[in-house]
Amino acid sequence: MTSEVVRPGGTIGILGGGQLGRMLAIAAAELGLKCHVFAPPGDNPAFEVAGWATEAAFEDEAALGRFASAVDVVTYEFENVPLATAATVVRSTPLYPPPRALEVSQDRAVEKTFLGRLGIGTAPWIQGAELAQSCGARFPGIVKTRRYGYDGKGQVRVASEADLRSALSEFRATDVIYEELVPFAREVSVIAARARDGSIAAYEVGENVHSGGILRTTTVPARIRPETADEARRITGLILDALGYVGVIGVEFFVVESGGREALLVNEFAPRVHNSGHWTIDGCCVSQFEQHARAVAGWPLGNATRHSDARMVNLIGAEVEDWPKWAAKPAVAVHLYGKAETKPGRKMGHVTELMPLGDLENTGV
Amino acid sequence: MTSEVVRPGGTIGILGGGQLGRMLAIAAAELGLKCHVFAPPGDNPAFEVAGWATEAAFEDEAALGRFASAVDVVTYEFENVPLATAATVVRSTPLYPPPRALEVSQDRAVEKTFLGRLGIGTAPWIQGAELAQSCGARFPGIVKTRRYGYDGKGQVRVASEADLRSALSEFRATDVIYEELVPFAREVSVIAARARDGSIAAYEVGENVHSGGILRTTTVPARIRPETADEARRITGLILDALGYVGVIGVEFFVVESGGREALLVNEFAPRVHNSGHWTIDGCCVSQFEQHARAVAGWPLGNATRHSDARMVNLIGAEVEDWPKWAAKPAVAVHLYGKAETKPGRKMGHVTELMPLGDLENTGV
Repeated sequence: MTSEVVRPGGTIGILGGGQLGRMLAIAAAELGLKCHVFAPPGDNPAFEVAGWATEAAFEDEAALGRFASAVDVVTYEFENVPLATAATVVRSTPLYPPPRALEVSQDRAVEKTFLGRLGIGTAPWIQGAELAQSCGARFPGIVKTRRYGYDGKGQVRVASEADLRSALSEFRATDVIYEELVPFAREVSVIAARARDGSIAAYEVGENVHSGGILRTTTVPARIRPETADEARRITGLILDALGYVGVIGVEFFVVESGGREALLVNEFAPRVHNSGHWTIDGCCVSQFEQHARAVAGWPLGNATRHSDARMVNLIGAEVEDWPKWAAKPAVAVHLYGKAETKPGRKMGHVTELMPLGDLENTGV
Repeated sequence: MTSEVVRPGGTIGILGGGQLGRMLAIAAAELGLKCHVFAPPGDNPAFEVAGWATEAAFEDEAALGRFASAVDVVTYEFENVPLATAATVVRSTPLYPPPRALEVSQDRAVEKTFLGRLGIGTAPWIQGAELAQSCGARFPGIVKTRRYGYDGKGQVRVASEADLRSALSEFRATDVIYEELVPFAREVSVIAARARDGSIAAYEVGENVHSGGILRTTTVPARIRPETADEARRITGLILDALGYVGVIGVEFFVVESGGREALLVNEFAPRVHNSGHWTIDGCCVSQFEQHARAVAGWPLGNATRHSDARMVNLIGAEVEDWPKWAAKPAVAVHLYGKAETKPGRKMGHVTELMPLGDLENTGV
């Protein structure tokens, strides 16, 4: 399990075959790196752009072992890779980001405890098990499953004690947490990478708009004060260092305005390339995908500065049918993920509108 | 052989498996298009990023027929696709750029005659067969094979009648042309695309430096007058329209300075994506590769404006070993082609240095 630099011609193994794996494989190919995608049977658009593919369950130890032995380094495109899968991989091959990042991010209670110990603010929260005994909850809030929640799934909004009891009756108390709703002014995120040598490169903070729990748009730069952006990057650095991280991370924040000041609370982080960083493909010399490939391969990080202002719009479900409209617009980059089937709520593609640097600046606070 | 729009999920067939096919397949994938690469046995780095590959000779009619029937449209990454291969393809499937573009560009005599009839200037030239009879050649000049010359191959410089006779003795007179050396100030090229509806999008003119017949660098913008750049684009449009062209073309020009004016002579054109357009991957919202995929798929062309100044440097042969140096530079995008073997003169990759728009402007004439 030595961590040698993966030279051009070497192979990155990717766990997961969705659009993130696909864009990662494309970026790795531009660096002369080969990719081997490992994913369970299903719609795996990453297979089409990778030289090698294994279709097998994450629990298939034999297939995993062969996969890990055939590549120089392994990474993943989603945070719910089973820890047992990670353990199998690391027996023969380096895995980045490190398994600890999976362990922390897979469980909201562990994640919030981890953040709290670093002195990083989050929305007030209570373990489900504590809630079941005596209610100290303030309303409104959200009951969230500790595991496997994404794109708004596994979440129930509650406005009263009765709502809460009703929501809790649907889950095992130990499987959920309760989180107070924070009246935030906006949501922002930091996409950053940490290299094996500990160096960090952070992209410009993006402002995110969600709807129904799904990211709709990311706009760069975010309408926040420069010192708030600096603070968001500082917090991201704390997380990266504490995890001994290697690769790209996406950290989501709530920006809370109070008394003329902006405070930041971390909502959650994802130990992978992130939807709110897709604008970097078109807005920067080095995208988050290339940055991730560089980091896990042991290359120096690229420069994370941007050459343009950008607005990324997700194409969700049937919205992908609008592709001719987007393709006809000037200064819009179209990215479609090649998924076999269009379903409501499924991320089918995204578009990024580029604007000259500064066009979006100072339009906010 | 209807030319319907190839929708996302449709398949582009690519004849040729080198770096141009590879970058084309990557760009097509970003648009949600599938790729099937057809190439003779050899080092075919495009295979690794395409969902489907056929390894067979261009003369294998059965394999070609199966390939053409399995895709929605066919294109090519190099101009020496045999005309018989093109004829086989078009029996079942649209081929862009059209076969006429292959026919003209594969033969320097036919190409120069075609340009002459459009009133487009070239270096003075003589058919080899005429030369053999009576010499009206002015020296110095170059004997060039009519076919299969690239990267400086198939060319002999001659300075005298004796040189010329010696050079001619190496070839069949009907296989060569003689071209006078033009004392040019610089070499530039236009990368442009024409859509099925006849609309044209041209990129900023790039300035090229060749060495030993191989492109070394392209710098954008070129150090030429705005009216010269306009004229280069106008000439490119004439060629595109005359060929009923669909796809990206690369047109190389000599810029000749005379009496304080700049005149343009066409050196040659390539009916494909072009090395001197690689800077568009990083310097524009829509690259030449995406533009070509859009054109052959029947999509609207993207905007060809650039967001940055750029300098592209080819990594030839062992220069690819410098990749760590380039990867460590800020604002440099590294592109390596994944070729199995490094050989002298082989294009192994390229890098593009980006600079803010205007940094390189007005540094010349």
